[in-house]
Amino acid sequence: MSTTVSPAPGAASRPGGRSARVRAAVHRAVKELVADEAGEPPTIPVIAARAGVHATTVYRRWGTVAELLADVATSRFSGDIVVPDTGSLRGDLERYAHDLAKDLSDPDTLALVRATIGTGGEQGAAACRGERQRQLEAILEREQARGEQPPTLEHATDAVLAPLYYRAVFTDLPLTPEWTRTLVSRLLPG
Amino acid sequence: MSTTVSPAPGAASRPGGRSARVRAAVHRAVKELVADEAGEPPTIPVIAARAGVHATTVYRRWGTVAELLADVATSRFSGDIVVPDTGSLRGDLERYAHDLAKDLSDPDTLALVRATIGTGGEQGAAACRGERQRQLEAILEREQARGEQPPTLEHATDAVLAPLYYRAVFTDLPLTPEWTRTLVSRLLPG
Repeated sequence: MSTTVSPAPGAASRPGGRSARVRAAVHRAVKELVADEAGEPPTIPVIAARAGVHATTVYRRWGTVAELLADVATSRFSGDIVVPDTGSLRGDLERYAHDLAKDLSDPDTLALVRATIGTGGEQGAAACRGERQRQLEAILEREQARGEQPPTLEHATDAVLAPLYYRAVFTDLPLTPEWTRTLVSRLLPG
Repeated sequence: MSTTVSPAPGAASRPGGRSARVRAAVHRAVKELVADEAGEPPTIPVIAARAGVHATTVYRRWGTVAELLADVATSRFSGDIVVPDTGSLRGDLERYAHDLAKDLSDPDTLALVRATIGTGGEQGAAACRGERQRQLEAILEREQARGEQPPTLEHATDAVLAPLYYRAVFTDLPLTPEWTRTLVSRLLPG
C-alpha cells in the first residue's frame, strides 16, 4: 500500500536549501531596513515581516538583533575585496586604501557599519573590521617575502585603516583618492 | 474669595528648574540603560520609566531616541577635557592623546559612543566627535602663535585622533600610554 506522497521538491528534502533561502531573505531585509531608516535599528518582528518569515524563525536562528546584524556585517565585510598584488608595497597599499575608501563611501555600507556598531558591542565591531586587518597583514607579509622591511601591522593600521574608518563613520568629509594616497605616502615616505 | 492655593515652590514658578531636572533625569537614565545593556538601544518608554517622567515629555522634547542619544553624547563629549598647555606642541599632543585615550577606555563612555553612532547617523557622529577636533585645532594654533610650523589639522586628525577612536570603537586592544605616545612621535618625528 505505497500511497505515501513524496515531499515537494526543495522542501523537506533539501533543508539546506530552505535554510539558505531564509538566511538570504533575512539578510536582504536587514540591509534594506538599515539603509532605509537612518535611525533606530529595526526590530526582529519588523525584519521578519519584511523577509516574509516567522519572527520565531529569526529568534531561533539569531537570538537578538545584535547577533543578526553582526552576521550580516560579517558576510558583508569578509571576502569581498581581494588582496591587491601590484608588485610593490606602495602600489598594494594604495589599491587597498582606494578599495576600502570606495566601500566605506557607499551609504548603505556605512549605515550597516553604524547600526552594527550600535547594537553589537565587541562582536559587532569585529564583524565590521571583517577581513580588512587580515588583508593588510597579507600585503605586509608579501613585502617581507620580497626581502624588504615593511612597517608593522600596528603602524599600518594606525596610519591607513584607522583614518579611513574614522573619517567614514565619524565625519561627513569625503574619502577622496588624493587623501587615501596621502595616507599611504605618510606611512611610506620617500 | 482668594482661596487659591499657591503653586508648590519650584514647580510652575520655576519652569527652568523643572526642565533642567527632567533633562538631568532623562540623561542619567539613558547613560545607565546604555551602560547596562550592551545591545539594542533603549526605547523612549523604557527611558521615561527609568527617569520617572512621562514618555510624552520625552517624545515632545527629543522626538526620537537618535535625537536624545545625540543630545546626551553632545553634553558628554563637549567641554569635559581642557586644552592642555604644557609649553610645547609635543607635550600638548601627548597630554591630549592621553586624556582622550583614558576617556575612550571607560566602558560606559564607549557604550554611549557606540549606541549614538548606531542610531544617530551624521548627527550622532558629530556629537561623538564633540569638541575633540576643536581642541586639537587650538593646540596646533598655539604652536603657530609660537612662530612654529605645526602639522595640518587634517594630518593631526589622521595620525592621532583617528587611531584612538578606531582602536576604541572597532577593536578590543587597550589604549596604552606607550601607544598614545607612539602616535604623537610618528606625527612629530625627531
